[in-house]
Amino acid sequence: MLKPVITTFGWVPPFARGVTRDLRARWACEEEGIPYEISEIDWERSKSRDYRRSQPFGQIPTYNDGEVEIFETGAIALRIAELGNRLLPEEPAARMRALQWVMASLNSVEPWIMRAATEQAPGQADADSAALIEQRGDGMSSMSDAAAAADLDKRLLDLDAAIGDRQWLDGDTFTVGDLMMISVLGHLRNTKALSSMPKLAAYVARGEARPAHVKAMAAQLALYEEADKRMAAAARG
Amino acid sequence: MLKPVITTFGWVPPFARGVTRDLRARWACEEEGIPYEISEIDWERSKSRDYRRSQPFGQIPTYNDGEVEIFETGAIALRIAELGNRLLPEEPAARMRALQWVMASLNSVEPWIMRAATEQAPGQADADSAALIEQRGDGMSSMSDAAAAADLDKRLLDLDAAIGDRQWLDGDTFTVGDLMMISVLGHLRNTKALSSMPKLAAYVARGEARPAHVKAMAAQLALYEEADKRMAAAARG
Repeated sequence: MLKPVITTFGWVPPFARGVTRDLRARWACEEEGIPYEISEIDWERSKSRDYRRSQPFGQIPTYNDGEVEIFETGAIALRIAELGNRLLPEEPAARMRALQWVMASLNSVEPWIMRAATEQAPGQADADSAALIEQRGDGMSSMSDAAAAADLDKRLLDLDAAIGDRQWLDGDTFTVGDLMMISVLGHLRNTKALSSMPKLAAYVARGEARPAHVKAMAAQLALYEEADKRMAAAARG
Repeated sequence: MLKPVITTFGWVPPFARGVTRDLRARWACEEEGIPYEISEIDWERSKSRDYRRSQPFGQIPTYNDGEVEIFETGAIALRIAELGNRLLPEEPAARMRALQWVMASLNSVEPWIMRAATEQAPGQADADSAALIEQRGDGMSSMSDAAAAADLDKRLLDLDAAIGDRQWLDGDTFTVGDLMMISVLGHLRNTKALSSMPKLAAYVARGEARPAHVKAMAAQLALYEEADKRMAAAARG
């Protein structure tokens, strides 16, 4: 059986925990019941010429299962969905609608979220934190102006209307399209962006309550807590 | 045989010609040798509640071949590639790399281009033009500031390095990943963004010189020229 190896940072500052994009790959593996391994890298390595041979933009995650080696979370989630049999419907029309929502999460929603990112940098930012702030917006410096917030609000209202009273984007079946959309909307966790959109907020909450998401999130947070402990122990000498 | 019907605007102002996103679907059909039909809509229709049932964000294109009905150009190009046999390699690793580049065009390149869009609105903008300016940035108001330009430059330099001396993103085989990436980079046509990146510029030029692209582009431009003529005739009474 192919075993996915997912590259992510071995440590990130608190604001990035729960949103670094390896979460999408972890979640997809958990939904499909596919065991995976994590390969840890640091910020310097992510920007190296060698790493950029597998990820030209110097970002995480990358994915390698021995047969397929790729980057881009949309492609990674799709690969995992194809290895399993739960996240991607077989019927052609439903399968393509799931793919459409994967694309929509990445092209019609995430860019607006990244651009409007308004979180503040940690007060006591160290060098690693400062560097990782770039990762928050995936290389897009944030511009917390009114136009960016208004553009994002429009997008979210459109999505809220599209979901309406549905359980998932395509009705009753959770697909890789929901996994990606809910992951993208997770970047809004500590903002008020969804406060006037109860249906959209409930959709995100439904997705994040799935056992596979809970398990993936716990695994990501545990990695960083372990790293904190190692660093604290090292600092004590 | 399934016949794709692609929805686009029946008229757009000159600055949008050659970049409205139906071009990607047209180009994919031409590469695969699949006949298609165009269904024209106007701006008002694109924002209607009825149209938003097939495109929640009120944009073009949408796609319907009788079996599959979707939006999002990445999904549309992929569907056309799967109907044909030229744009998507069969071998699993190469197929997933092609999909990875589709995702990269939409998530790791296009958002930076849209955000840095610095074209000026037409001097004599009429109501339709003014409305369509929003479409240029796909609903993202442009912020022509230095940070946006610098972020875009970094992305393009990464991509320039990734292409290097390759003919196409994955080597010698043109895939749906190239079709999408070159379409996205086409938005930079009237800017100087690629002037210091001869390899990336040559890659775009190679793609746009393909007979299928030339034919698709000519068909898009012809639609708008016909519309201009009809409007001029109507104005003369």
